Amino acid sequence: MKITINEAAVKINDAQSIIIAPHVNPDCDGLGSTLGLYHALIKKGHKVRIFVDDDIPEAYHILPGWEIFERPVQKIDNVDLFIVLDAEPERTGRVREITDAPILNFDHHRSNTKTADFLYLAPERAATGEIIYELLTALDVDMDHDIAMSIYTAIATDCGFFRYSNTTAFTMYTAGKLLEYGVKPNLISEALEEKKYADLKTMADVIYSIELHNGGAIAVASADKAVMEKCDSTEGFIDCVRIIKGVDVAVLVKYADEALTRVSMRSKKTDVAAVAENLGGGGHIRAAGCSLNMPLDEARKRVIAAISEAMMEKQNVD
Amino acid sequence: MKITINEAAVKINDAQSIIIAPHVNPDCDGLGSTLGLYHALIKKGHKVRIFVDDDIPEAYHILPGWEIFERPVQKIDNVDLFIVLDAEPERTGRVREITDAPILNFDHHRSNTKTADFLYLAPERAATGEIIYELLTALDVDMDHDIAMSIYTAIATDCGFFRYSNTTAFTMYTAGKLLEYGVKPNLISEALEEKKYADLKTMADVIYSIELHNGGAIAVASADKAVMEKCDSTEGFIDCVRIIKGVDVAVLVKYADEALTRVSMRSKKTDVAAVAENLGGGGHIRAAGCSLNMPLDEARKRVIAAISEAMMEKQNVD
Repeated sequence: MKITINEAAVKINDAQSIIIAPHVNPDCDGLGSTLGLYHALIKKGHKVRIFVDDDIPEAYHILPGWEIFERPVQKIDNVDLFIVLDAEPERTGRVREITDAPILNFDHHRSNTKTADFLYLAPERAATGEIIYELLTALDVDMDHDIAMSIYTAIATDCGFFRYSNTTAFTMYTAGKLLEYGVKPNLISEALEEKKYADLKTMADVIYSIELHNGGAIAVASADKAVMEKCDSTEGFIDCVRIIKGVDVAVLVKYADEALTRVSMRSKKTDVAAVAENLGGGGHIRAAGCSLNMPLDEARKRVIAAISEAMMEKQNVD
Repeated sequence: MKITINEAAVKINDAQSIIIAPHVNPDCDGLGSTLGLYHALIKKGHKVRIFVDDDIPEAYHILPGWEIFERPVQKIDNVDLFIVLDAEPERTGRVREITDAPILNFDHHRSNTKTADFLYLAPERAATGEIIYELLTALDVDMDHDIAMSIYTAIATDCGFFRYSNTTAFTMYTAGKLLEYGVKPNLISEALEEKKYADLKTMADVIYSIELHNGGAIAVASADKAVMEKCDSTEGFIDCVRIIKGVDVAVLVKYADEALTRVSMRSKKTDVAAVAENLGGGGHIRAAGCSLNMPLDEARKRVIAAISEAMMEKQNVD
């Protein structure tokens, strides 16, 4: 059932004991939105616990309070409200199993499955962090540095530090208000963009692996077994592919195991959410991904074919 | 003589025929600020010509009206006001020689030589573009897409797309207001970050050239003769150096000729403006550069020594 931001605020005001969780394979929007809301609700006197059914990548330890996250272990009684952020309840992993409380879901993904009891869905927002900012305004929360930094990080990362097409005037105004609470944008970007010297050299290897297809409209980089073994993080690798002149769709295929390949896609024109959905994945129009149960070389071919097809169909429509 | 933004607006209102120029070796802040002010003053009925004593890099051709820039050739008579943006008048090259009109200078560089007849200097501003926004407010200009896009590009590039420490709440509010006029942040960032496939592979070569010094606090990448010959643009190369974990000062040394090396520096802590000034260059605390009259290898050693010394002195102070 879809509700307004003010109706959502009433649900929260009426709840004493609250659980909040982002999706598995968490990003800074999920984690930062959860922490921003956590710090705010603790301040308002609610009893709050936050869960994530995954490890939190080391780079995200800049988020104030990241260590408060618990892993779901056993059923929790007497929970009044279960708040799910930045994805549908099914994507919270085992957190979904520890409570039967009514679910209040905030999300900005058009692909949200709308299974929550109460849903506030705002696809026009660049990040769930923006929705949390709106919510805290509705809840009349007294903003402070930790809340602001959590939400700022959520917003900044989901709009590529204000470079992606989802960046709006609202995004900038919200970020500006959050900076008034002492958030240091350079410390956040430096911490998140930071790479080990060894990983940077691996990025150079990945740059050499780039193949161009469809007259240069598709660029595919491969992180094979050797790369994945010597590399702590492939964060930012796809951005090197994305910036190639003339490229519409940038792809990074990553070895997971001999029969599993992870695929990330970024696009300037083509709807890669549709491509990813056809391959069993999902995401946004310009940033999507999927996992394919096949070896890397086969997965690469499959993805190139799927993107070429999507480009062809689009041409036929034009 | 220092003046206020309102006094500067009066000088402009009183002038009929105006020349505007940014510094040589122009960046998007200089060019975008000039174009933003040009479009605004044309709208207000002034007679305006804009000059730059340099080529305009192809990537900057996204700036609306870049082709209006003239190269300085001969003396121009009956000019009421010469506006210099983003540097002191000495840095406009031969533009300085084509007019004897009084000089009105807007800048945000602390290193400004203060030689202009009238100076509005605001070192707290992330970009001269922010100052132009303030000025257009004082001039009561009716904002439109071309003005907004020129100024947005000026601001966004000078604060590293809102990632550098100079980014303030004012920066974000101003950018938000400019987005209201239909500016597309993704098109600007894509156009400016775009790299040819060949240049990207050259970037991989430069990554392999990186040396770490001072226990990893200084990282130096070299773009030697071979690299510079096959590469159209080294834009963004230094960012690869800057993101290495543990690095305080990132350096890119570039071959110009056998006896000339250009040096760029980015820092997280050390004052590289001071280092650059000692070597005959200049810039901001966290982004500075210089040109050294010596071969690349010698220049690299000289720069590493100068940075080490600056780090040592700083330690002694602490």
